[in-house]
Amino acid sequence: MIGIFDSGIGGLTVVREIKKTIPDEPILYLGDTARLPYGTKSPEAVKRFALEISDFLQKRGAGVIVIACNTVSAIAARDIEKNFPLPVFNVIDPAVAKAREITRNRKVGVIGTPATIKSGVYQRRLKGLKVFAEACPLLVPLVEEGWLERSETRMIVEHYLAPLKQKRIDTLILGCTHYPLLMPLIRDIMGPDVELVNSAREIALSLKKKKKLFSGESRRARDTFFVTDNPYHFEKLSTLILGEKIKAKNTTLS
Amino acid sequence: MIGIFDSGIGGLTVVREIKKTIPDEPILYLGDTARLPYGTKSPEAVKRFALEISDFLQKRGAGVIVIACNTVSAIAARDIEKNFPLPVFNVIDPAVAKAREITRNRKVGVIGTPATIKSGVYQRRLKGLKVFAEACPLLVPLVEEGWLERSETRMIVEHYLAPLKQKRIDTLILGCTHYPLLMPLIRDIMGPDVELVNSAREIALSLKKKKKLFSGESRRARDTFFVTDNPYHFEKLSTLILGEKIKAKNTTLS
Repeated sequence: MIGIFDSGIGGLTVVREIKKTIPDEPILYLGDTARLPYGTKSPEAVKRFALEISDFLQKRGAGVIVIACNTVSAIAARDIEKNFPLPVFNVIDPAVAKAREITRNRKVGVIGTPATIKSGVYQRRLKGLKVFAEACPLLVPLVEEGWLERSETRMIVEHYLAPLKQKRIDTLILGCTHYPLLMPLIRDIMGPDVELVNSAREIALSLKKKKKLFSGESRRARDTFFVTDNPYHFEKLSTLILGEKIKAKNTTLS
Repeated sequence: MIGIFDSGIGGLTVVREIKKTIPDEPILYLGDTARLPYGTKSPEAVKRFALEISDFLQKRGAGVIVIACNTVSAIAARDIEKNFPLPVFNVIDPAVAKAREITRNRKVGVIGTPATIKSGVYQRRLKGLKVFAEACPLLVPLVEEGWLERSETRMIVEHYLAPLKQKRIDTLILGCTHYPLLMPLIRDIMGPDVELVNSAREIALSLKKKKKLFSGESRRARDTFFVTDNPYHFEKLSTLILGEKIKAKNTTLS
């Protein structure tokens, strides 16, 4: 069973990719909606939240922990690895590997939340390449509203991407699990010469490669989704992301 | 000393109005930035947060508690009144009184966060009038970004206000303490026939009327500002709202 978590609903884009690549492995998802967003919280708080959730997933039988959140991956991945015996996958490493593999002109752009960009994690792991990073604080609220193709959204995305276009990057990492929902728009704005790295897709592919690490007899278990506050908003947005309305249960993480 | 709190920085618009109307009374401000936003949290969580903060303000010498947040005012004002001996002012009552006083056609609009609008508090307290309420989830993120006059912001505000214009309201309550920063834009969109009720302004006026309830010998104390997480963002936005950069101290509310 794949244990996977995010501060809220963004991680469902990772679930979507995992269902495509490893359809027979059940999912155990936790969205920490009572404390979202993480992107503006301190590193100490994010670490504490991440360890509490990893404990929850392990106790309920997860065979692997997938951090489907860039902020947690940037700040707390090492802490989870140190404190739990399970294999841990973060959303940053496979995206970085993919970007290194495909860039030709060695100019790579990264977009993400202010916390992720400020952490400098992509800039450090892409060392040796020219990295141009842009914080895009309005994109998560726009996706949460379901405004994926409105003209207001296009204008705002154009505003954030303008400096990256100017630098003539040939590769752009979508460094937030909400952003794959804006992929058609981003692709249209960046044009055909820029390759997009969808970190949700990359983490799913890297999980598939190491499937034997965690795949077990639990195959027939059903997918389960937990949230730490009212599931209403989660259920509404799951339709947008997964194409079906998902029933989520409330939990207090104990 | 006036104790005043909000989930984050929106309450500074209330501070701004209080400084205009009661300039000689010191301010003790708490912005709960570690747990913001409240607008998407459950009523139980918001009540618990509000009681913890009221306790903090009382212990540090506040003579009055000003709830500078519509979500808390909607959900937890009665709980604070029951649990503390201090006078308590919420941001909703004075706005409702003002709207009742000035409407001529008895059609009143209210804009606010999803939590405030969903709570139905304005709709109930404006009983007898025709009330048209619109949740505007993107406005807080836009204000937090400082995008007060960009064309993207105008398009989004026009989108939210369109149904209210169509209903021919003559009074519009700004039911979120972030919104006074968008007042020039909202006034321009709604036109001269619609009166705007600025709840930050109204609560400051109602405090002034009852000044003898809380004004004491502490007049020479200086204003102090606390936040529960990193003060960086708070300090940046205080410049936008108060016209000066404010030093905030970090606290864990104990």
